[in-house]
Formats: sequence, C-alpha cells, structure tokens
Amino acid sequence: MRIAQVAPLAESVPPKLYGGTERVVSWLTEELVRQGHDVTLFASGDSETAATLVPAVPQGLRLAGVRDHTASILVMLNDVLRRAGEFDIIHFHIDLLQFPLFQHLFHKCVTTLHGRLDLPDVHPIYRAFPEMPLVSISGSQRGPMPLNVNWLATIDHGLPASLLPFKAGGGNYLAFLGRIAPEKRPDRAIEIAKRAQIPLKIAAKVDPADQEYFERVIEPLLDHPLIEFVGEIGDEKKDEFLGNALALLFPIDWPEPFGLVMIEAMSTGTPVIAWRSGSVPEIIDEGVTGFLVESIEDAVRATRQVRGLDRLAVRSRFEARFTVAKMASEYLHAYERLLVTLEYRHPLAKSAHGTRSIPSEVLPSLPSLPLLPSLTPIVGESVRHPSQRSYPHEAVIDDV
Amino acid sequence: MRIAQVAPLAESVPPKLYGGTERVVSWLTEELVRQGHDVTLFASGDSETAATLVPAVPQGLRLAGVRDHTASILVMLNDVLRRAGEFDIIHFHIDLLQFPLFQHLFHKCVTTLHGRLDLPDVHPIYRAFPEMPLVSISGSQRGPMPLNVNWLATIDHGLPASLLPFKAGGGNYLAFLGRIAPEKRPDRAIEIAKRAQIPLKIAAKVDPADQEYFERVIEPLLDHPLIEFVGEIGDEKKDEFLGNALALLFPIDWPEPFGLVMIEAMSTGTPVIAWRSGSVPEIIDEGVTGFLVESIEDAVRATRQVRGLDRLAVRSRFEARFTVAKMASEYLHAYERLLVTLEYRHPLAKSAHGTRSIPSEVLPSLPSLPLLPSLTPIVGESVRHPSQRSYPHEAVIDDV
Repeated sequence: MRIAQVAPLAESVPPKLYGGTERVVSWLTEELVRQGHDVTLFASGDSETAATLVPAVPQGLRLAGVRDHTASILVMLNDVLRRAGEFDIIHFHIDLLQFPLFQHLFHKCVTTLHGRLDLPDVHPIYRAFPEMPLVSISGSQRGPMPLNVNWLATIDHGLPASLLPFKAGGGNYLAFLGRIAPEKRPDRAIEIAKRAQIPLKIAAKVDPADQEYFERVIEPLLDHPLIEFVGEIGDEKKDEFLGNALALLFPIDWPEPFGLVMIEAMSTGTPVIAWRSGSVPEIIDEGVTGFLVESIEDAVRATRQVRGLDRLAVRSRFEARFTVAKMASEYLHAYERLLVTLEYRHPLAKSAHGTRSIPSEVLPSLPSLPLLPSLTPIVGESVRHPSQRSYPHEAVIDDV
Repeated sequence: MRIAQVAPLAESVPPKLYGGTERVVSWLTEELVRQGHDVTLFASGDSETAATLVPAVPQGLRLAGVRDHTASILVMLNDVLRRAGEFDIIHFHIDLLQFPLFQHLFHKCVTTLHGRLDLPDVHPIYRAFPEMPLVSISGSQRGPMPLNVNWLATIDHGLPASLLPFKAGGGNYLAFLGRIAPEKRPDRAIEIAKRAQIPLKIAAKVDPADQEYFERVIEPLLDHPLIEFVGEIGDEKKDEFLGNALALLFPIDWPEPFGLVMIEAMSTGTPVIAWRSGSVPEIIDEGVTGFLVESIEDAVRATRQVRGLDRLAVRSRFEARFTVAKMASEYLHAYERLLVTLEYRHPLAKSAHGTRSIPSEVLPSLPSLPLLPSLTPIVGESVRHPSQRSYPHEAVIDDV
C-alpha cells in the first residue's frame, strides 16, 4: 500500500525533545516501512525516517522559533494535495486545516485525532465536514464530539516492544513522570506518597508556562524526606526510572485522550495507579496492570495492593495491546476497510437539486470517478449507515 | 458588481468595542452598498449592515469566548467557496486561510492585508501562492514580503467624511489615543508633553496583556500636573477629544502598517506629530497635516510649529485622501482591473509538462473556462508583467 503520513510541524519526527504525537507518528511510520509498505512522510526536514521524507519546513517549528504554524501547514497540505494521486491512503495527524482542502478525497483519507476534543473552538469543522474518516485514540475521547462524524475506529497507541524492556525487580518507590502541570496533579502524587510512607521520585520538566504553578504549589511540597525531584530525564533513563518503580502514579485531573506514560510503565512491567479520568479505564486492566482510583485514600490503599500484582502479567498485557506492531496492524485494517468496500456517499457529488454543491468551476468532473468505497460499520461500533443508493452522483450533501 | 466581503470573525462588523479591521470592512461595505453594488458580507451574526449578511458564527468570537478561530473561519471559507459563482469579486480581509482553498479562483479574488507583514511565520503561504491579488494599506507594509507576490494596489484606509467632523477650535492639549502598549510608546508622549510644558490627555485602554507594562512603566509617570489619564473613551467622545486637541502624538516604535488614529485626528482638523516609522511618512504631509519626527527634541519643537498649521488644510487633505468614498472608489477600480483585462496567467492550468499541476481528480475541467482576466500594471507600480501568451491553458505554474 502507498501511504502518506502527514505529521504536525511543531517538532521533528521523532521529536528532538518532547512531542507525543510526533513520537507516535514515528513509531507507526517506521513499523509500516518495516512491514514492507511504501510510506511517504510529510514532516519537518530534520526528521529521521526510513520512509521517504518530504520536508515541509527545514526544522521543527517550535525550536525554529516559529509561533504560528498555520502558513507552513497549509503549504504542506497543498503539496500533499498536489501529490494525492501517488497515495492509496493519506493519513493525517493534525486536527483541522486539511478538512476543506481534502473534501474531494475523503474516500482515501484518515485523520487520527491526537488531542482532547471537548473544547468547542474546533467543533465547527467536524460539524461542517462530517464525512472525513476519523480515528479516536480512546473511546472516551469521542464523547464531546458532534454526533454525526465519521468514526472509522478507536486505535490504541503502541510503542516498539523493545523500546522499554521488562524489568523484573520489585521496586521500592512510586514514580511520577511527565510535566509539572496543574492538570497532571503532581500534588496528589506527593500526598499519596506521604500518606503511604513510600518514597516518590518525580521525573518531570517545568515548562515556562508552568513555572508559576511549580513555584507556588509544588516546590513547597518537595521539602520532605520521601519526596525526590529528579527533574527532566532523557529517553535513555526512562526504562530504569519506570522499570525500577513499585508503581507509576497517574493522578490526573482532566480528560486525557490517551496517556503514553501509562503504556511506557506497563512496557517495563510496572503497574499504574491512576485516577478514573479520560481514557484511563480503557488503558488499565483493574487488578492486572494496575488500579483505578478516585481519591487519595483509594490511591494509598492501591499502593499496598500493587505489590500483589504480577509484573510479567503487566508486561504481557502491554505486549498484547500496546505494541507498535498491534497499532500498525489496526491502522492497516482500517485503511483496507476504506479502500475495499463498495459503496460510498460522496459528500460533494452534484445532486439533482444542486443547491448545496460546490460550483462546477471548482469541482472535479465527477462522471469519471470510479465507484467510491464506503465505510462498513465495525461490529459493535455505532456508526452512521450510509444510505443505499444506486446513483452515487445523486448523493445529497449533509445538512450541516 | 456582485461583491463578497469576507471579514475576520474576532469581532462583529462593525465591532462592539475595538477592531480596526472590522471597522474598515464596515465602512467599505456600507459605502459599496450606498453606491448601488450588490454586496454580501460574510461575518459574525451580530454584525450590522445594509449588505446581505451571511452569518458564519452567531457572535463575534472574542466576546463569545472562543480563542482559536481557525475552525470557524475554515467553515466560513467553505461556504464562500460553495457560493463563489454568485460573485464577480471575492474580497478577503483575513490573512492566510483562504489561499489554498481558493487557488482556482484567484482571477476573481482580492486579499487586503491588514496587519504587519514582517513576521516570518506567515511568509510561506505568500511564497507558495504568489498569484493571489493582494492590496497593501501602505507602501512600507510591503517591504518584508516575498518579492514575487501579486500586488494589485496600495489603498489607504478611509472613513466616512461625516463621522468625525471638523472642529475649528485651537486646542490647548496634546492628545494620545489608543492602547497603552509598549510599541505605541505612551512614555514618549508623556516626556514630550513635560518638556514642551503642554498638557497631555491620554485616552487609552489597558488590555490584560499590557497591565504589567502599564503598572511598571506608565503609571509612575502619570503623577504630574500636565498629564491626565482619561482612560477609555467611546466613539461618541472621539470627535471632541481629537478635535479640541492642539495635535495628536503618535510616537510609535514599530512598523505600523497604517494607523487609523492619524486619519481620525486629521478628520477633525487636528494635525499629527508622529515618529517616522512604518506607514507614517505616507500618511502625514510634512508641514501641512503634521510633522514627522525622530526624537523627543524634534517632537517638542514640532509642538511649537504645529500652531502655525491651518486646521482647514488638515481637514482638506483628509477629504482628498482618507474618506471612505475615496477608498471605495480605489477598490472598485482595482476590482475592475481584475475583471476586464484580457489575459491572465492561470496558476493551475495544466501545462504540457503537467508535473506541477494539481491532479485531474481534484481540478475543475479547465477547457470550459472563459479567457480569464489578467492584471494590468498600475502606472508607477512595479509589478510582474504577465508574459504574453496565446494559449492561456498552457500557462506554466510559477516555480515557488
């Protein structure tokens, strides 16, 4: 299959420092190449990949000092559009700029939504272009979205099985890994450790935006024999940091759409104690890979229960659910569903009424298009059923 | 002429409070309607206009609490695209989101660039789509732009002649009107007033973003008998505030692309003392409507010279250059140049080589397009000369 991966331009793929989306795009891209597919990656020029790299900008825009990425992304999207005929599937990892431009090509497009979807600012684009095939990264992520969008699948993130190897050791500290940010609730982690009388190691960065929160709320809590603020750690230290922990604390306070750090911990065999928020109930298997909690007391109790969990069982669940091989396999199934099914309601086919269609001066000449694929509902998923139609060119545009 | 005006969605047209671009869009729209044209205004639903209003969102997005306007603008642009056949001219007052989507329709599009153009973040879109006809609001605004873009004209902003009527009175204070922001240099205004021993009235708002600057830099300077901080004033007080002043101080420190407050002052007959920065040398007629300065000493000297200026001459220059009737007339000439000239290099006509063209599955079927208009160079302007071609469909895409 000829596949285009369209990445954000904030960071290189993979990122030089942080960048959850760019890490996932990198893992997926490299795995698809490894499996023999013809992959073209549209990303920043300092990306590193075995795929064909099409550099949209010379360097990841954040480190290049560019604040507004819109112009660069639009130029990249126009390049993708110009070359659309070279690909069987165009897979976007950005949230919204591609919708109007690719409205003629939704039959071969997929957009994975990587962020939270509850802020109303972005909903107009999904209401206006409900036909774009979407992939969510958790079931809970979908909740706030308009009801008639076109969910193709929910696909868990996955990382390479060998990236964070299993560590058998018991571990005698609780781990907190990530950013010192209010919604991640490092203060809860500190409280849990103190009440459970177990050491806590905090490996986290403090962004400029979070400096005030760190100084005002967290720093005062660090002065305690059980609490150790390790600061930022590089990727090469993650395996040791997570693998030697008793458990990862994930006491979040917001609708996390996935939470990569949870599967990173599980990869090393370390179980997770996490607040029941966002995606967490879908990621953690209660009593196997960790515990879901709703209070400090729950969490303290869980720190005692967690010693009874089998670290090998944690690793096994990771291998079953959260490897990049699994993620790539699910994406390939999703791509195939798009390409092989028979009927598709083309959103812009000129209807007999014609009042809502794009004027002919800008539309492609539709009679020459082949019958376009449609979306077979996935068993158990609630999706819109494309109406049965003999004449695809008489499709009516959704009333948005 | 059937004209679409496409406004930003941050504020209504006209704005409820502040919004330079939305004010100009409102003045232009109402004047075009007054002159008998068929105008459709794409803007927020709380806009007020004699044109046909197509509401893109219910309310101006800033007051509606929406921070990211991208999705709403994209949906609006798609509506404009769907209805493109209804208009002879589509006039955009937003900076970049329309370029890829309207690349087939540049022959009937105009974009007025309302902001500063020196920040590199946006340049990629202008390099990639150099054919979009652009209007600058001053000559100096063009300086930092890529060289091969398609300047159609420079058109001064203009306001209704009766909006800020002439006031004959001498005036005995200096006026500063606008925002308390570092680049507007209210501190210079205060220093000038103190050294010239002339009262200064500051009618300005303090945005949350500028609160720290106000408290740290400006507030300490206000405690002086000559300095009066009036705070925000509404539109209804502007005529009196500007009209009764000896001069407007405009001591800016940044490449201002236009500077509406200067022509507001001139409308009342009040001359302007302004730093030689950005558009200022093009707006002020030295020794007639004010003085261009480069230092506090210059400015102090100018406060004495300004009494020798003829307020009626200031008003006359305003009436000759900066009324909305003049602005509308220049835009209509620009629209007509687009529509009536005979030859146009269509950026996306399929060339014999075809390698850079948009694939046929998404291009309109070009053979049915009429000969498209081209751009006649404006006398005195340096523009690209479209190459002479007999076969418009063999136009080659610019190497961007």
